Amino acid sequence: MDTQPTGLQTAHWHAWPHRVRYQETDRMGVVFHAYYLSWCEVGRTEMIRHYGLSYRSLEEHGLYLPLTSADLKFKQAAGYDDCVVIFTKAKMTSPLRLEFLAEIRKVNEFTGGIPETGERVLYEEPYGELLVQVATTHAWLDRDWRPVRLDRFAPATYRLLQSFCDVSEPAR
Amino acid sequence: MDTQPTGLQTAHWHAWPHRVRYQETDRMGVVFHAYYLSWCEVGRTEMIRHYGLSYRSLEEHGLYLPLTSADLKFKQAAGYDDCVVIFTKAKMTSPLRLEFLAEIRKVNEFTGGIPETGERVLYEEPYGELLVQVATTHAWLDRDWRPVRLDRFAPATYRLLQSFCDVSEPAR
Amino acid sequence: MDTQPTGLQTAHWHAWPHRVRYQETDRMGVVFHAYYLSWCEVGRTEMIRHYGLSYRSLEEHGLYLPLTSADLKFKQAAGYDDCVVIFTKAKMTSPLRLEFLAEIRKVNEFTGGIPETGERVLYEEPYGELLVQVATTHAWLDRDWRPVRLDRFAPATYRLLQSFCDVSEPAR
Amino acid sequence: MDTQPTGLQTAHWHAWPHRVRYQETDRMGVVFHAYYLSWCEVGRTEMIRHYGLSYRSLEEHGLYLPLTSADLKFKQAAGYDDCVVIFTKAKMTSPLRLEFLAEIRKVNEFTGGIPETGERVLYEEPYGELLVQVATTHAWLDRDWRPVRLDRFAPATYRLLQSFCDVSEPAR
Repeated sequence: MDTQPTGLQTAHWHAWPHRVRYQETDRMGVVFHAYYLSWCEVGRTEMIRHYGLSYRSLEEHGLYLPLTSADLKFKQAAGYDDCVVIFTKAKMTSPLRLEFLAEIRKVNEFTGGIPETGERVLYEEPYGELLVQVATTHAWLDRDWRPVRLDRFAPATYRLLQSFCDVSEPAR
Repeated sequence: MDTQPTGLQTAHWHAWPHRVRYQETDRMGVVFHAYYLSWCEVGRTEMIRHYGLSYRSLEEHGLYLPLTSADLKFKQAAGYDDCVVIFTKAKMTSPLRLEFLAEIRKVNEFTGGIPETGERVLYEEPYGELLVQVATTHAWLDRDWRPVRLDRFAPATYRLLQSFCDVSEPAR
Repeated sequence: MDTQPTGLQTAHWHAWPHRVRYQETDRMGVVFHAYYLSWCEVGRTEMIRHYGLSYRSLEEHGLYLPLTSADLKFKQAAGYDDCVVIFTKAKMTSPLRLEFLAEIRKVNEFTGGIPETGERVLYEEPYGELLVQVATTHAWLDRDWRPVRLDRFAPATYRLLQSFCDVSEPAR
Repeated sequence: MDTQPTGLQTAHWHAWPHRVRYQETDRMGVVFHAYYLSWCEVGRTEMIRHYGLSYRSLEEHGLYLPLTSADLKFKQAAGYDDCVVIFTKAKMTSPLRLEFLAEIRKVNEFTGGIPETGERVLYEEPYGELLVQVATTHAWLDRDWRPVRLDRFAPATYRLLQSFCDVSEPAR
């Protein structure tokens, strides 16, 4: 099947800019660590929006995608007013689960606009100084928080995800 | 009517302790100003719990009490690990609205436990170094965010509030 | 003096877009009220950046501008994923103080990019559905948190501010 | 050496109570996931305070302990107004690093006060319904964010930590 994603598919990194807010710093003068995890939520939302998927709309259709785990590696700290880019890519390992990789990277002052407005937003490799690496796993749940198989519950969404996720499922 | 609150009633200040978290500081080394507003929500919840009213339970019965305004006066800043007390009192100006006054005050290291556990929690006057004064106004709404008259929608709750709020309603 | 601001000067509203994050909502399904205050900090920072003034740089030069008061009027609530615009304008009432007015307004899905990237960012009147009005007052302080007169401490910054603030100081 | 901790030492879990705040919930009606990471910071601070170590004081002496990694496993979600206990224990794997394990557990309504005030705060096993497991690793840094060996930089603190941490260092 020519449209069938395979293990060879390589997802791109989606770039989303963020300027560090005063509130996000702590008395050490750098970003309080929990905010990196918050930023990843923004990165995921904007990445799937880029591909035409609204997380708000998913919830309105009774699909929830809460985290089952998060793994963060802190390499360098961001400071107030720093320009960072949240790079996000997704990986589909089963119809029940979704994984996201994120890299928070520091860049020079944003120039030439920010990605949302017509700039390139997809990259084969993230750029900038690596600050934090994050991997999160998520489970598809229905309104009653019961696990759902996405391919049966929402096949069109499933196929759309296949088109832009790394896919490591075995061929069926 | 002997149980009728009058304009002469004076509510007490309810004291709730808080230790300033690292996250709540910013790079200026002090508490980021928006947290004082967040703390007031904790103060209100714990004050009404003290009088037997659970805000969670109110919502489960279809009553909501969102803010309509907030007024904050910043006098002094709290720092990391400081011990503060959130003093709260309520004022009922109409069956449609509720007002809260709060004072965030800095105290010495908590000693002899914190109020929740048997200590005195009601005071005629707040103590400690005044940091921030906050006044918030709230409207009673139903599940559809329509205004409700509390005395008709939930008369028992209305009477309970009358028993511990400053009451400035005209006699009826 | 032809460059002297007068009481007739009318500052413009600076527009800064924000997409409501999942974290910013609460169980009522709308934005937790304290976030509006946080957003205003972003609005102020980006407004002065637009005019060439970096708040980070001010702090590096020993100038701080903490809040002395905040007044919020909540009109309507924003929901998850809503597009809002933070409108900000500044008013200089004395060399010791600065005031900011902000309006958080809901707009339709951002189209045609967001202001930062070449769009118009200054408006005579805010647009969109009014959600929250905020007025904050601030005092100029030095590194030791002592009040400073901006016109003496940093005259160039003072003149720059005069060029884009509402000015209500009496002529001198 | 009779005071030398050995690999056989088993640290206890330190219990710290928390009542879920309205702000900490999101529109899914449960706690936004990043708050669990924030709560762990409170748990760590209060655990070392229990043993006589103030993190604020450490910083005043030029010692910082930022995170190098965090690993979270989300099992169940907490809801608004739920009573949770943050269980924390520490493990010293080298003079350069410190690890903390945390478990966020849901308990029934707090009864008999909360641990801080004379209740038992140390437990061999956590109790309550497990919500989230967190492991964080930290590095000792000086004011210039250079790694320091704690046993040389602050030997008394090092020995104090040895007295209450799991110790997995090889005998020397």
